Amino acid sequence: MLTVGLFPNTKKQGIHTVLASIIQYFHEHGVKVVLPENAAPGLKYAQFTEKLECVKNDITFALTLGGDGTLLNTAREIAPFGIPVCGINMGNLGFLTEIELSDLSAALERLVRGEYYIEERLMLDAVVIRDGSPIYISPALNDVVVAKGGFSRMINLKLLIDEELTAEYPADGLIIATSTGSTGYSLSSGGPIINPKLKVIVITPICPHTLHSRPLVISEREEIKVRMQATHNDIVLTVDGQTVYSLFPDDTVVVRRSPFRARFMKFTGKSYYETLRTKLRRGDQNGSS
Amino acid sequence: MLTVGLFPNTKKQGIHTVLASIIQYFHEHGVKVVLPENAAPGLKYAQFTEKLECVKNDITFALTLGGDGTLLNTAREIAPFGIPVCGINMGNLGFLTEIELSDLSAALERLVRGEYYIEERLMLDAVVIRDGSPIYISPALNDVVVAKGGFSRMINLKLLIDEELTAEYPADGLIIATSTGSTGYSLSSGGPIINPKLKVIVITPICPHTLHSRPLVISEREEIKVRMQATHNDIVLTVDGQTVYSLFPDDTVVVRRSPFRARFMKFTGKSYYETLRTKLRRGDQNGSS
Amino acid sequence: MLTVGLFPNTKKQGIHTVLASIIQYFHEHGVKVVLPENAAPGLKYAQFTEKLECVKNDITFALTLGGDGTLLNTAREIAPFGIPVCGINMGNLGFLTEIELSDLSAALERLVRGEYYIEERLMLDAVVIRDGSPIYISPALNDVVVAKGGFSRMINLKLLIDEELTAEYPADGLIIATSTGSTGYSLSSGGPIINPKLKVIVITPICPHTLHSRPLVISEREEIKVRMQATHNDIVLTVDGQTVYSLFPDDTVVVRRSPFRARFMKFTGKSYYETLRTKLRRGDQNGSS
Amino acid sequence: MLTVGLFPNTKKQGIHTVLASIIQYFHEHGVKVVLPENAAPGLKYAQFTEKLECVKNDITFALTLGGDGTLLNTAREIAPFGIPVCGINMGNLGFLTEIELSDLSAALERLVRGEYYIEERLMLDAVVIRDGSPIYISPALNDVVVAKGGFSRMINLKLLIDEELTAEYPADGLIIATSTGSTGYSLSSGGPIINPKLKVIVITPICPHTLHSRPLVISEREEIKVRMQATHNDIVLTVDGQTVYSLFPDDTVVVRRSPFRARFMKFTGKSYYETLRTKLRRGDQNGSS
Repeated sequence: MLTVGLFPNTKKQGIHTVLASIIQYFHEHGVKVVLPENAAPGLKYAQFTEKLECVKNDITFALTLGGDGTLLNTAREIAPFGIPVCGINMGNLGFLTEIELSDLSAALERLVRGEYYIEERLMLDAVVIRDGSPIYISPALNDVVVAKGGFSRMINLKLLIDEELTAEYPADGLIIATSTGSTGYSLSSGGPIINPKLKVIVITPICPHTLHSRPLVISEREEIKVRMQATHNDIVLTVDGQTVYSLFPDDTVVVRRSPFRARFMKFTGKSYYETLRTKLRRGDQNGSS
Repeated sequence: MLTVGLFPNTKKQGIHTVLASIIQYFHEHGVKVVLPENAAPGLKYAQFTEKLECVKNDITFALTLGGDGTLLNTAREIAPFGIPVCGINMGNLGFLTEIELSDLSAALERLVRGEYYIEERLMLDAVVIRDGSPIYISPALNDVVVAKGGFSRMINLKLLIDEELTAEYPADGLIIATSTGSTGYSLSSGGPIINPKLKVIVITPICPHTLHSRPLVISEREEIKVRMQATHNDIVLTVDGQTVYSLFPDDTVVVRRSPFRARFMKFTGKSYYETLRTKLRRGDQNGSS
Repeated sequence: MLTVGLFPNTKKQGIHTVLASIIQYFHEHGVKVVLPENAAPGLKYAQFTEKLECVKNDITFALTLGGDGTLLNTAREIAPFGIPVCGINMGNLGFLTEIELSDLSAALERLVRGEYYIEERLMLDAVVIRDGSPIYISPALNDVVVAKGGFSRMINLKLLIDEELTAEYPADGLIIATSTGSTGYSLSSGGPIINPKLKVIVITPICPHTLHSRPLVISEREEIKVRMQATHNDIVLTVDGQTVYSLFPDDTVVVRRSPFRARFMKFTGKSYYETLRTKLRRGDQNGSS
Repeated sequence: MLTVGLFPNTKKQGIHTVLASIIQYFHEHGVKVVLPENAAPGLKYAQFTEKLECVKNDITFALTLGGDGTLLNTAREIAPFGIPVCGINMGNLGFLTEIELSDLSAALERLVRGEYYIEERLMLDAVVIRDGSPIYISPALNDVVVAKGGFSRMINLKLLIDEELTAEYPADGLIIATSTGSTGYSLSSGGPIINPKLKVIVITPICPHTLHSRPLVISEREEIKVRMQATHNDIVLTVDGQTVYSLFPDDTVVVRRSPFRARFMKFTGKSYYETLRTKLRRGDQNGSS
């Protein structure tokens, strides 16, 4: 039996109406619906709500309701269970979400019939090493950012790739993005657009004070280390624009390929390049929820 | 009688030796030396030290010992008194400092003989307006920066020029630089290099999320207002990379021409463009002390 | 008696209708109209057509019908006579043209009443020096471009400012633009936007092979020399995107402030920054006729 | 028996001395040497010289003497035969050449002993389609460039990826580069640096007049088409900076993965990133012979 996990961003206006109509649709078509508990703490759908751990093996696919941010969060969370995910867009045109509200019923029909394919996306793991031990780890689907806080001028960062010193950046920070994240913060800092199907990593300095510094595209198999110069404490780690961790001057941030892939459900006929053209002309970028 | 104010950066290595030799040189040549009290709190030159307010009318010119940052600080402080200033460089090649340690004695001779000319530099005033009243004001010689802190994703800034809405930037921040400051942070963010003799202002967005945003060069006579969108508190004001003020979401930052000019003493024959070529090839930028 | 010189771009569709209505308007309001002969070779308004040389002292102001290119051409041509000029836009939104067709009758009324002010714009002179002698000279209102042709890889250019070697560029070419021209080709090559009221020059390299090369803003009083490295013949000089001259390997191109200013007629209330915002969002730039 | 093909750039100073010493070294070590006829037309080594077609199956590996350009040319020519190639650098620090003259004898020893590994590099095929038929084809190892000549202002280019319209560029041109070529012309136009081991393609516009245009990294498996807008004849196709073909306004340039790979011989221990750091700091780029 088909089981769908629903992951709504409950802060979006009109979310309850949409959610109710989706639940009704699935109910009428004999599809079981679960709302993982932590996905919708404020919602009153007690009969569906369960702990993600309890239902992870039963979910056929996940549906997010919100923007790219909601999809990013959910995709990261369910990647270890191999559950594919599809985003219903409730905001501006999304880079990552596949379904517009105006096409909702047709899209739900295609999902129930299994008329979709899976596009795997590279994920990264960011690990903070302090005094030789890993003290923090976070998966990333868009980007890992090591950057100065607001009260410091600039930081000196050393970039090592596969243990080799590759560059030193006096800069505001460094963005390590997947191809999925290349249209986000990395693009604002001068990085290239990368087709999200590619399993590559782009390293983009933020406001480098050395003019010859340039975005660098490397293989997903290369291990990245970012070392700070130990003079101040105002350095922060940001993952997918949402998680933040305060770094110490002697910390090392290791970024490497995650053992998991995000699995995005795609319909035939929706074009990445068409979305890209529309978005760039409008000046939008991904990453907002 | 010639009176020289000395403004040393007492954190520089070897500063005492250099300071002693300069004081001796001036002593031998009948030049009076004063060390303004707040300029050298840790130094043991009690007989020279005086409050800047007491001696400001007596000082013929000021000499800084340190880097570009020391010169920036001093120039800002003494600009209201019309005192010209010259920088002795004790660090890397400086954009702003005129005298290298290796040329010190020849340079002191030229200074005593009056063999220099004055180059006036545009200064700005940054004013923070809160609830309709100015609550903070700071002069700037390099740049005024309104930027997000480390714990926020991006900020929405409105730029008004002479009360007219000119641009809206979803960005990390906005740099408003003088031509003197154009080779500093603004350059790292994609701004042009501006001959420091020009009395113009360059407005450079930091990591703008709209790809069509570009640095804008305007007249010193235009008044700039930066308005924030009121959603978070993590915005900071930085002036010349050294002064920092926490902004509230409804604050407005006004930047306008200062009534004072910085007055830099220059020797004939030292070339701005030659320094520029050397610095850019080395990847350096101004602003470090 | 008020005398208006009309300068139409006769290739624009619908030009004859507009021209006829303008001539009629002026006729009814007692304004004399002249169409300088070379301005409208294909038009049948024999009774108005005269040589520019014969009427230059009689023309109160000039009106162009076309796009920014038509206005550029005319402004350059009449600048030596001090005649002010206003552009009627018959194409896309223009950076330089002041009057939209939809506002034509109101605008003509304001012009006849003298309800306008003059904005002076910096012009440059480009001079080609060959074997020590000037062999070609052209005024420029937008930009002077020295660039490789299609059949060479790159060129080595030396930039001298006031006889001092300032930079060497292995590049596709070099753009020397006025602030008026800053929103044209220079912007495409990474140059800043400069308020056209400023009398400054921006020097922007095209595809520089040295990553530290950056746009440079200098005073209108500085004299620019561009020297080529003598290895090939495929270098061209372009002025305002319209005039082209083939350069020899040992030629020097001198660019200096023209003794003349373009004099643009402006109405109070039309905003430079508003036009700028609209254009940049649409991705347009100036310079097309 | 080991057979080495020598491909010297006979315009390099001192080439005969180096060539003689290499030939002697191989002679002493029982290695057969051939100089393909077209590789060295001006050289007097008749006994070794043979047509490439005759010896292609006998050559164990090829050695080039010159710069990156010499290596590019040879690698392209021998790629169809699967012959690996190694470059001896006789100019500036090369991105592609593996052997410095100062290490020559040690390097030859390693080559003879077989102490090297092969790094395969993506190659492209550029095909010009006119009136529906392919009329020109060229392999590319660095980049394929479609650009305006010197006498036109800009061109309108349509980019199709896998038959889908992806972008329209009013621009000076478009660069389609391999990762090997990413440090060449593409870098000058704002493209990223791509680790040459990656089999990806970067598409970089040259001076785009739309400010939202950005470099785009795509898969080697995607087929690129560049279509011109049919208004002028001054468009040229350049391949690896060396081959040039004049395009007609209705031509289409197709760029797709070549069936062949360039096979570069590499020694363990020489680092791509180390070369990169040195080159970028010096402002050099690849592609010159």
